[in-house]
Amino acid sequence: MGIFVVMEGIDGAGKSTQAKLLAKWFEKKGYEVVLTKEPTDTAFGKLIRRLVLTGGKEGIIDGARISHEAEALLFAADRAEHVHKLIKPSLESGKVVISDRYFYSSLAYQWARGLDLKWLIDLNRFAVRPDLVVLLDLPVKESMKRINGRGIKTEFDKIVELQKKVRENYLKLAEMFPEIKIVNAQNSIEDIHRDIVGLVEQEILSKV
Amino acid sequence: MGIFVVMEGIDGAGKSTQAKLLAKWFEKKGYEVVLTKEPTDTAFGKLIRRLVLTGGKEGIIDGARISHEAEALLFAADRAEHVHKLIKPSLESGKVVISDRYFYSSLAYQWARGLDLKWLIDLNRFAVRPDLVVLLDLPVKESMKRINGRGIKTEFDKIVELQKKVRENYLKLAEMFPEIKIVNAQNSIEDIHRDIVGLVEQEILSKV
Repeated sequence: MGIFVVMEGIDGAGKSTQAKLLAKWFEKKGYEVVLTKEPTDTAFGKLIRRLVLTGGKEGIIDGARISHEAEALLFAADRAEHVHKLIKPSLESGKVVISDRYFYSSLAYQWARGLDLKWLIDLNRFAVRPDLVVLLDLPVKESMKRINGRGIKTEFDKIVELQKKVRENYLKLAEMFPEIKIVNAQNSIEDIHRDIVGLVEQEILSKV
Repeated sequence: MGIFVVMEGIDGAGKSTQAKLLAKWFEKKGYEVVLTKEPTDTAFGKLIRRLVLTGGKEGIIDGARISHEAEALLFAADRAEHVHKLIKPSLESGKVVISDRYFYSSLAYQWARGLDLKWLIDLNRFAVRPDLVVLLDLPVKESMKRINGRGIKTEFDKIVELQKKVRENYLKLAEMFPEIKIVNAQNSIEDIHRDIVGLVEQEILSKV
């Protein structure tokens, strides 16, 4: 069986940067690495981008935004494909899988939107549990600075409020799921990478 | 609050015919009727038709058929939109909603594909319960004759086997959900309609 590591955290926490660095680190050690993300690039991921992330309204019965439940179910459908077609087969062939976001994102974000946490956990019951989930934690103020650098400007206050709730949720989830380890994402990219490598060695490699 | 009636049963049982007849019956009595179906015609329904019902392979990671879990979640996402955008608002404005298929279809079919019934029920926990579910029951041999009339010819034995399991599941569900009433769908269209009207009067109108 392979190794499954997930990067989680609010937007702008540095997940994709750290996922790439960790992939390179594993490759240098001789592992075969699958670097992946959620939402995926399948038909489900495309629909998520069209209907959810860009606020699109196409195809929806009354032209309104899709319901939170539909959103949660669509993310879970995308995840089911991800698990069955990529994650499980890769792990079974002994590879290292590093995913930028996984079901913890659904829990943190959709719980913040008012859905029942137990229902969200139930939906995702099919999802294989990772060996390690790195929670890149930083204050929302910091993350917003980074995001603004990406040229995204929408209803600022609303986003800050949501991100704060999501950050809190992630920290609560870390108390519920022992595989989640918190890393201070305010440090330099190199320091964060070093912390993550330390966790990988301590939580996974030392136990193999 | 309005009235919510669902037609269920295997392919070829006469659901859409009976849904239309019942809609006309309610309209003649002066009710405002919303005749609807699942999968819907939203972006979700379109994706279901493309990925599931037509056996399409577009956009899927390794070109294989989508997983049973993804299928179940996608149907539930479609249903969440259906419930939030059409069914609930219509019922709240006092209309009669008649749906050709609802979550019982997901339970009967996806349970037949080997998924856990409890999980399927959990997924659909958001779905408002109908006042009456008409289960149009008939032997698979009969339904297959009707379906063949529609010019569908695929792996015949496999379909017969699945339909038999689905029929059994529907009958088991009728024992679990008291709103499901079984109607013999081998009778003439007129007789079946009369049976359904009898159920509507007995189970709904007499109780208002």
